[in-house]
Amino acid sequence: MKLYSETHTLTAADCNAQMELPLQSLVRQIIDAATGHANLLGFGYDRLLADGSAWVLSRLCTQMNRMPRVGESYNVVTWVEATNRHFSTRNFEFTTPGGEVLGYARTVWVGIDIATRRPVDLTTFTTLVEMSSDRHCPIDPPAKLRFSELNTVRNYQVQVCDIDSNRHLTTARYVELAVNCLSLNDLDKALPGRFDISFARECLFDENLTIESSLADRTLEAVIRNPAGEECCAAKLILIER
Amino acid sequence: MKLYSETHTLTAADCNAQMELPLQSLVRQIIDAATGHANLLGFGYDRLLADGSAWVLSRLCTQMNRMPRVGESYNVVTWVEATNRHFSTRNFEFTTPGGEVLGYARTVWVGIDIATRRPVDLTTFTTLVEMSSDRHCPIDPPAKLRFSELNTVRNYQVQVCDIDSNRHLTTARYVELAVNCLSLNDLDKALPGRFDISFARECLFDENLTIESSLADRTLEAVIRNPAGEECCAAKLILIER
Repeated sequence: MKLYSETHTLTAADCNAQMELPLQSLVRQIIDAATGHANLLGFGYDRLLADGSAWVLSRLCTQMNRMPRVGESYNVVTWVEATNRHFSTRNFEFTTPGGEVLGYARTVWVGIDIATRRPVDLTTFTTLVEMSSDRHCPIDPPAKLRFSELNTVRNYQVQVCDIDSNRHLTTARYVELAVNCLSLNDLDKALPGRFDISFARECLFDENLTIESSLADRTLEAVIRNPAGEECCAAKLILIER
Repeated sequence: MKLYSETHTLTAADCNAQMELPLQSLVRQIIDAATGHANLLGFGYDRLLADGSAWVLSRLCTQMNRMPRVGESYNVVTWVEATNRHFSTRNFEFTTPGGEVLGYARTVWVGIDIATRRPVDLTTFTTLVEMSSDRHCPIDPPAKLRFSELNTVRNYQVQVCDIDSNRHLTTARYVELAVNCLSLNDLDKALPGRFDISFARECLFDENLTIESSLADRTLEAVIRNPAGEECCAAKLILIER
């Protein structure tokens, strides 16, 4: 019960130019596994919605030794680490059937009241609190991201296919907007090692976003801002040379 | 053997603003099912690659009564209809566990020699020819798309997350570029009924594409052109009022 796992096989249609699982798909599978486990234990999206609240992903990090390759099967295991009034942390481990550890992920979730957009007290969900596991996750928690000068500026207008069930820019698309600051050549030479992303404000349909970024010493830093100039999302990706 | 099926459950992270399976994800699952069946029968991507050739999707149509909804499970069944020297046609049926037919799809595939980009004779793959099934698919074949005046022009620069294992714009992304000619309001009011798409030329990383489109009488027509002005992809989507 405290552990939940899903098995995936990377198909040709789902892999990227490097014949590997794209970072944005890894993030989608992290959210899917979290959703599957939460639904099973009775504190999923539907249960919170009955109280007029919803799960919101606040921060996420992934640290991969390598990405799953095309045709390869792999397993994602997830468990709740801890829950307090404000946050619930949930971790993930990715392994091959042969036992090779591909990497780990950590996520930080908040519950918000849909009407007021204010945080709700997560400790009222007793099953959630009881499900904490002391299973080890050997990577650092999601970083607080603070950037100085970001020297490249691009714009992106939010499209209809980018919108999720909450009518905001979908999480995987934030990841894509950050990764898209890289070139095909960058990703041919290096793979995503450590990735940190934090979400501050939601982006809406048709908004013209500004994406500020900088790539130096194999580290990509990116900030996505809404038309008011407010930070919506910050991301940092450390590439590992192949 | 002649039929192959996969079961999916639509997760919250994978649905769109209308809480349904997005058209681009339906297309991705069509390709995944085709790949799964072909691999199982020994005429998949790997088998063709051993001869220096590859499968290329030439045309596709989907005709849905409705889309799968969030939390809903559904089944995709696929079978080869026929194979001649030039083409192999493969069909799909989408149903709920209760037996409701959600819709159908038809695809037309060619085999190309990777070095010369010329078509290969598909009848040399005897298993493929033998696997033809006379199972009924009650929708019209993919249309030959010819458009007159398309009154809206947009541009899109191909990003690194758009690139697939063949180092071209990925099929699902062509579908997104077409659907993105619609607004959130369009898709709140109507659902994708009949969709036809044909592929003429591949789009490459960093290319600045032109997307010409027109929306009239609930019919979206779109053409994607490369910087040389050549047609890469044409699509037609007929919306059904909800």
